[in-house]
Amino acid sequence: MTLDPVLARIDADLNQATARLFELLRIPSISTDPAYKAHCDAAADWLVADLQSIGFDATKRPTPGHPMVVGHTGGNGPHVLFYGHYDVQPVDPLELWDNDPFDPQIEDTPKGKVIRGRGTADDKGQLMTFVEACRAWKAVHGTLPANISMFFEGEEESGSPSLTPFMEENRAELTADIALISDTSLYDENTPSIMTQLRGLLGEGLTITGPNRDLHSGSYGGVAMNPARVLARIIASLHDDDGRITVPGFYDGVPELSNELAAAWDDLKFDHEKFLGEVGLSDPAGEKGRRPLEMIWSRPTCEVNGMWSGYTGDGFKTVLPSKASAKISFRLVGTQDPHKIRKAFRKMVEDMLPPDCTVSWSDHGASAASVMTTTHPAFAQARKALSDEWPNAAAFTGGGGSIPIAGHFKQILDMDTMLIGFGKDDDGLHSPNEKFDLSSFHKGIRSWARILHAMTS
Amino acid sequence: MTLDPVLARIDADLNQATARLFELLRIPSISTDPAYKAHCDAAADWLVADLQSIGFDATKRPTPGHPMVVGHTGGNGPHVLFYGHYDVQPVDPLELWDNDPFDPQIEDTPKGKVIRGRGTADDKGQLMTFVEACRAWKAVHGTLPANISMFFEGEEESGSPSLTPFMEENRAELTADIALISDTSLYDENTPSIMTQLRGLLGEGLTITGPNRDLHSGSYGGVAMNPARVLARIIASLHDDDGRITVPGFYDGVPELSNELAAAWDDLKFDHEKFLGEVGLSDPAGEKGRRPLEMIWSRPTCEVNGMWSGYTGDGFKTVLPSKASAKISFRLVGTQDPHKIRKAFRKMVEDMLPPDCTVSWSDHGASAASVMTTTHPAFAQARKALSDEWPNAAAFTGGGGSIPIAGHFKQILDMDTMLIGFGKDDDGLHSPNEKFDLSSFHKGIRSWARILHAMTS
Repeated sequence: MTLDPVLARIDADLNQATARLFELLRIPSISTDPAYKAHCDAAADWLVADLQSIGFDATKRPTPGHPMVVGHTGGNGPHVLFYGHYDVQPVDPLELWDNDPFDPQIEDTPKGKVIRGRGTADDKGQLMTFVEACRAWKAVHGTLPANISMFFEGEEESGSPSLTPFMEENRAELTADIALISDTSLYDENTPSIMTQLRGLLGEGLTITGPNRDLHSGSYGGVAMNPARVLARIIASLHDDDGRITVPGFYDGVPELSNELAAAWDDLKFDHEKFLGEVGLSDPAGEKGRRPLEMIWSRPTCEVNGMWSGYTGDGFKTVLPSKASAKISFRLVGTQDPHKIRKAFRKMVEDMLPPDCTVSWSDHGASAASVMTTTHPAFAQARKALSDEWPNAAAFTGGGGSIPIAGHFKQILDMDTMLIGFGKDDDGLHSPNEKFDLSSFHKGIRSWARILHAMTS
Repeated sequence: MTLDPVLARIDADLNQATARLFELLRIPSISTDPAYKAHCDAAADWLVADLQSIGFDATKRPTPGHPMVVGHTGGNGPHVLFYGHYDVQPVDPLELWDNDPFDPQIEDTPKGKVIRGRGTADDKGQLMTFVEACRAWKAVHGTLPANISMFFEGEEESGSPSLTPFMEENRAELTADIALISDTSLYDENTPSIMTQLRGLLGEGLTITGPNRDLHSGSYGGVAMNPARVLARIIASLHDDDGRITVPGFYDGVPELSNELAAAWDDLKFDHEKFLGEVGLSDPAGEKGRRPLEMIWSRPTCEVNGMWSGYTGDGFKTVLPSKASAKISFRLVGTQDPHKIRKAFRKMVEDMLPPDCTVSWSDHGASAASVMTTTHPAFAQARKALSDEWPNAAAFTGGGGSIPIAGHFKQILDMDTMLIGFGKDDDGLHSPNEKFDLSSFHKGIRSWARILHAMTS
């Protein structure tokens, strides 16, 4: 089957493709907040209907959390499974958005047209690049070039509690020759990327309790333990002066970068001054003596994602708080064991507690890092196809974010994954005013059409 | 004029006095939150009307913030100025209250009847003890035994920004022979107290900014500065391992306790295990080597009253926050200079900032400690009158809280102050389920009637 008419169809259909994406973006499918449960369900229904319209036998599949969407075409050729997620991050602080996050708009910017709204880049806009490539292929040739399965989840932004049980229960149905995922970024605007290593993620919530109620800092200040001070001291102790993480055993399984990969990454000439400059920073703040790209792609981290205690409103309140809480996450690399690190972290915190303080914990997910097998032939085929669509040849890159599903595909389904995404660094993932470039959407659809062609011709 | 019929009248009128107090308690006069501005105004109006009903020429006096209430009776005898505040603390976390904080109730408890609601002890219930004593005196004798002025403010819980300008503009009108304040506690349920030293208060708000927007901790974690970590490190550094505060020059002007006062306080046999045990604590957490009572009454402190950064809602969000904020207060003693300490604290924080971080500040008030001149004859008169009302003799005590007005009375009006209050340690000031014992209210009114009698007979 020929590629050129498919590409032409994609170009001609772009406005309609954008309109379809807007329908999905308007559904506020925030998975972490129970108030949006019905909206997550509605997003799944929308995807089922859309896949059915292209000929997939798509169904909504219940889980204890938000539903999965699974669809198949059957047919000849290699069997590929495309994965995406229809849930999105919360939108707070809402006042920092210039427009309603769930009323997407096309905006003209100095760098070109962008699609603005929550979920545009992460991940609805990217998910739809693959769906639209299939639609165009079907419209032109009446059939798809491969045996394609779709697998969408609605809990990616909230720890994916239902994902591995569902994969284990549906192992045969979900296993294909290779998995494809579009939830990552271009290396730069001219250089597509196939991500070959991703960091894992360990999420922890903790609350330290001192007094059994909030106290007046005049009556009790000086004699009563303040849990906010205890929490600050614990957080401050998590890094040493060289930026290394102090949890015992944390660096077990952290590999040094190979000379080959170090050289390839140096060739990318990563401009950390520009990367940091765009967010108002200048100084690489990670471990001393590491390349900035290493800090993001291949070194583990410990970050405070949230922290709160006492009075946080306007004005002042001289309270000595009863509780202090934090949400802390670790990005993991190599063969670091998230469960071992969770245990060591909790023990370290518990050992630091002064008399009269207790700690309670919340488990916010644990996934190891993923390292892909780049010798699978699909990697070379996709690299060639991407290089045909974009100005520069595709690069094998690392990723700082965590897409635990790639690890699950390997561990549960023994399936390799290609991570090919079209986002940009300034998309504002998880932030106010998230966007996805219209050109990313358009060329993303074209890229998948080319990759499907390369894998089957 | 005789005292006994006044005391009898107070006993007979207790239900009506409580009903009047409830009217005032039902007005949610939270001064720190602009949303309650009209309610603060309504509380001032209520007091003006109530004072007028007892014969005061009371008026509401505008300020740039919440209004003052001032009223005079004129007449012979010593001139006393009674001060109180009609504003209250915020009520969050609201879910920890058993009842509406602004729907006061009389509750039976194992320790006796209590008045439950925001402001019952701090300070509406205490303020009304003096007003009710005047009302009873007027009802029995048709006149008051002294030349009495009333002075109520509505910004005590929000840093009193209008207070000193108002005092300076109305110096002659507000100057009396002595000031009386009821905003403190009994030493214990049987022992009334006249507080002769109070800690000062310096309130600071700070926000540390790193990246110019919230970032994805996958894309940026490891290379971008996290301001929550910076704030934690700053807060953790404010105390050394012995519990001493590390701000340079902080201890300038902190006196050692005199042998005389140390002995008098030791005589009080302060039961710190019981005091801390009631709030779920056991270990005096202040400077090593200090008496627990010293930690509260005569040592300076630094406390975190609020702290927040990043995502604090349900679930988890892998944000690398742009900002981290805290509200920090210092309790001051002796001749510590709040302005000098503010400057040293800000410099210390600014010196600790890593590259790419900035800090912005909010000034939440600054007052020095107060030490009273206990040789004024009113102190002996009041001590005798209180000892007649309560089982034990009245004690001269210290106070951990900050009532800056006592310092202002001395500095601006050259007037001594007697701090005589009827609260208890378990009143829950600034906390959910604040209460004031009905016996404190009743015996408080009787105590003021006795003190007015002792000062004028």
